Amino acid sequence: MEDKMRLSKYYVKTLKETPKEAEVISHKLLLRSGMIKRLASGVYTYLPLGLKALKKVENIVREEMDRAGAQEIFMPVLQPAELWKESGRWDVMGAEMMRIQDRHSREFALGPTHEEVITDIIRNDISSYKSLPLNLYQIQTKFRDERRPRFGLMRGREFMMKDAYSFHASKESLDEEFENMKAAYTRVFERCGLKFRAVEADSGAIGGSGSQEFHVLAESGEDEIIYCTSCDYAANVETATSTIVELPKAETLDIKLVDTPNVSKIVDVVEYLNVPVEQTVKAMMYKDVVTDDVYMVLIRGDFEVNEVKLKNIIDTIDVVLLTDSEIEDLGLIKGFIGPVGADLTKIKVIADKSIVGISNHTAGGNKLDTHYINVNYGRDYEAEVVADVRTVVVGEKCPKCGGELASARGIESGHIFKLGDKYSKALNASFLDENGKSQIMEMGCYGIGVSRTMASAIEQNNDENGIIWPSAIAPFVVEVIPANMKSEEQVALAEEIYKNFQDSCIDVALDDRDERIGFKFKDGDLIGYPFKVVAGKKAAEGIVELKIRRTNETLEVSKDEVVSKVKELMKQY
Amino acid sequence: MEDKMRLSKYYVKTLKETPKEAEVISHKLLLRSGMIKRLASGVYTYLPLGLKALKKVENIVREEMDRAGAQEIFMPVLQPAELWKESGRWDVMGAEMMRIQDRHSREFALGPTHEEVITDIIRNDISSYKSLPLNLYQIQTKFRDERRPRFGLMRGREFMMKDAYSFHASKESLDEEFENMKAAYTRVFERCGLKFRAVEADSGAIGGSGSQEFHVLAESGEDEIIYCTSCDYAANVETATSTIVELPKAETLDIKLVDTPNVSKIVDVVEYLNVPVEQTVKAMMYKDVVTDDVYMVLIRGDFEVNEVKLKNIIDTIDVVLLTDSEIEDLGLIKGFIGPVGADLTKIKVIADKSIVGISNHTAGGNKLDTHYINVNYGRDYEAEVVADVRTVVVGEKCPKCGGELASARGIESGHIFKLGDKYSKALNASFLDENGKSQIMEMGCYGIGVSRTMASAIEQNNDENGIIWPSAIAPFVVEVIPANMKSEEQVALAEEIYKNFQDSCIDVALDDRDERIGFKFKDGDLIGYPFKVVAGKKAAEGIVELKIRRTNETLEVSKDEVVSKVKELMKQY
Repeated sequence: MEDKMRLSKYYVKTLKETPKEAEVISHKLLLRSGMIKRLASGVYTYLPLGLKALKKVENIVREEMDRAGAQEIFMPVLQPAELWKESGRWDVMGAEMMRIQDRHSREFALGPTHEEVITDIIRNDISSYKSLPLNLYQIQTKFRDERRPRFGLMRGREFMMKDAYSFHASKESLDEEFENMKAAYTRVFERCGLKFRAVEADSGAIGGSGSQEFHVLAESGEDEIIYCTSCDYAANVETATSTIVELPKAETLDIKLVDTPNVSKIVDVVEYLNVPVEQTVKAMMYKDVVTDDVYMVLIRGDFEVNEVKLKNIIDTIDVVLLTDSEIEDLGLIKGFIGPVGADLTKIKVIADKSIVGISNHTAGGNKLDTHYINVNYGRDYEAEVVADVRTVVVGEKCPKCGGELASARGIESGHIFKLGDKYSKALNASFLDENGKSQIMEMGCYGIGVSRTMASAIEQNNDENGIIWPSAIAPFVVEVIPANMKSEEQVALAEEIYKNFQDSCIDVALDDRDERIGFKFKDGDLIGYPFKVVAGKKAAEGIVELKIRRTNETLEVSKDEVVSKVKELMKQY
Repeated sequence: MEDKMRLSKYYVKTLKETPKEAEVISHKLLLRSGMIKRLASGVYTYLPLGLKALKKVENIVREEMDRAGAQEIFMPVLQPAELWKESGRWDVMGAEMMRIQDRHSREFALGPTHEEVITDIIRNDISSYKSLPLNLYQIQTKFRDERRPRFGLMRGREFMMKDAYSFHASKESLDEEFENMKAAYTRVFERCGLKFRAVEADSGAIGGSGSQEFHVLAESGEDEIIYCTSCDYAANVETATSTIVELPKAETLDIKLVDTPNVSKIVDVVEYLNVPVEQTVKAMMYKDVVTDDVYMVLIRGDFEVNEVKLKNIIDTIDVVLLTDSEIEDLGLIKGFIGPVGADLTKIKVIADKSIVGISNHTAGGNKLDTHYINVNYGRDYEAEVVADVRTVVVGEKCPKCGGELASARGIESGHIFKLGDKYSKALNASFLDENGKSQIMEMGCYGIGVSRTMASAIEQNNDENGIIWPSAIAPFVVEVIPANMKSEEQVALAEEIYKNFQDSCIDVALDDRDERIGFKFKDGDLIGYPFKVVAGKKAAEGIVELKIRRTNETLEVSKDEVVSKVKELMKQY
């Protein structure tokens, strides 16, 4: 081993102040601990400590992908526009995809993902079912021109990603590989020492028939996860299935238009008309951004429309709420819109499945300052689509077991997809089956944000003093510190222990800097070494202090036992 | 170990035909063996076998850089234009540097090299001599928009590079690190199993005060290397120092203009005037592309002007020969230009040092169909600069020991530079010295073309059947082949040996494909496994054939000795 893990020679430049640009804790701590350095918005250099942590995550990912039977390749960053045009995504990707022209004015994308490239390789190389299934992966720098790059490594414009692509002769084979990858991902996040959840997810713009996200749990997470407190059901709130809320049936009464002056919000309707909120229905007006088709979405007054579900029902890329003037142009009156008595010639009505069973609900009167009461689905109006279009709320029933749903915040760090034939069809990746018949391949794709996983580990594991790395991904597992650099005895003992850790292949740093012990402790807490070993006053007796970063405990351990003690504790922390 | 090193499951797609695009042997063999795949001009995917070889080179480089005390970091691809403008290279880099605009129209370069970025990091992080010296390196994808990308991995537009940058408080410290890197590079190429030479080199556009190239020797190399057959002197022909050629001194005769009708070429002058070529001097007319200054370069008739030396003498970026009309505009007559009797008001004269000592040489007469004879430097004309401006030729004397110079072809695979203060001054990377005085840092930079080294290994090691990998960088060191897939005995023995190699951590592939032995041999030769182990007819006796790719030898070895035998042979091949 080289001598360069002595901090006196190592590149460690911690900062006292948190740079102002940093909003979230991982960003703050990565900058303060000197692990990364900003070069441009969303673009960072990994300094030696940061790169060590990144490589640890990368190696765990690589080992588990290899174990799962995937084969590593390395595809280019520069991707010819022609391939993206062939798949139809050149225009769809919009401003998020960085584009460049070479000296001959040929257009290229800087790879944000590699479905097109890998499918092009496979369609040229593979022609028989005998070569399938196949799973190829790479660990590579990806580019995405985020509108608002922020949160450091959480949402950068240049980031490290593991992306894998599988090819199959049948849907069953794809299903098998999907489960194989789910297991591999579970091992990756377990081995990284992270608390995480695998959740059902929306397939988004990438397309396909099924997908699952892996979320590292952290209060600062951008995503809300719904999970069952009784069974293993878990889903992104974007896609979590709502259950039908059963209401007591009542005798249907005659529909009636009533005056509701200045009463347009649900909360006011409830109070003014003295009805329970469970018996109100609101109408939300949406537009399909692709076709401009207009939708009236009907939902119970106390529920929220889930726009991801709505997009999937309509089968479009995005939806937006109508503006006031667009509402007016349709002859509707904002605050008093309802399904009864409106001109619906240019409007499609979508009803959330929860409203179908409500007896005698309210609805907008489609005239200024009026509402209908005693409205009933089926008798007074009908929708073109009845579907689950609402956002699940905490406390409602689990769609799988009927248990109670709870919510948590998560950071999406992995995502696996069944792509089906979306790309293989567009690019004509076909093979000859057992009968010599040409068939289109089935595809899956599987991503892990390597740099994002590193950042989310910090979001999950930190305190007011700094990072608390899980041992498996810590840049150094142990920091050995002589309490007093002037004590020959302490320095010699520290050197001895440093060497013992090296011999045991445990990543160790020796803090031989000419600094006070207080400074070293503070610096070590910030950097987040899981364990510190201090050669101090009892050095003469061969006794050192072992400090556990996560628990703040200090143990007295004999110098000969400290390596095995750390080995034991590494399983836990 | 996983089971995926069975070739029946491994991604191996060799080609029978050589793709037409390939000109050089490494390109042909990389494509035919299915190690790389073209995505666009100069842009390649590494398939599993190719990536394994690349990673082996990468790991050797990483280990030797670590051993030499350098620390690994990872810098971004996207580099803000502002930094390149600060160093003055934004315009200088020209069309070779790929440029991109983000969604806010901010300009970035796709990093072709990282002097600016690293210097920016260091100027912000390092302020004291105590933190110096420092050597930081990365292994990363680089971009260069070559005018004519070709030769596969030899001259790509997207390629893998190791680049290191060192920072120092003194020139002496930089000199030390330069020697340290020279030693590290020597170990890298030795460990890769390559025949190479470290040669003196021109510093080129990157600037600086000293540089050395590492050339992998191969007949197909683009560079000519001059080396001494007696001592360790070696230099790129671009920069190799010429020695003064001593000629017998003669009494100077009177200068005389003589008619030489239609005699303009040196070969004709020699014949027509019946003088030895050593007594002729030719005048070459050059222009500095930056300043447009014109130079008359005088050199012995049988020598060639070295344009790299000329550039360095003039201190410019490039020089070009004058066109016929530019020569005419200066009042000169092509074929009859000389230093005597010409109007030199707009022309600077540079004389190669070899002509100064020639007695009674010829020169152009500056009138149509005339030459001077008996011209003598100093008496009849003088030059503003006398310098070494000629290209060394094979057979001349070594400038170091007087021995004989020879020449070889090489592929530049590594280059180390003393940059001095070129970038640290432009970007103001300063530090406080022992006396608290601010000083500009000294810098060095050190590159290895990782993908190019892989390709040059093939240029050096191949035959008509395919690649002959040195063991250290072979994707697999051993291929185990059951001669007959239908023989249970042979298959079982092959499996046993396959497992034994795995247990000994030797990279091994089992060729369990349902193919004939002839096909497997051919495929194996193409891919270039250094060793094949065949379980054949003597399987029952526990004897296998060990085939050495480089020598074509076949040894009979007992199954229990084959691993140790291969271990022994690996040191040699």
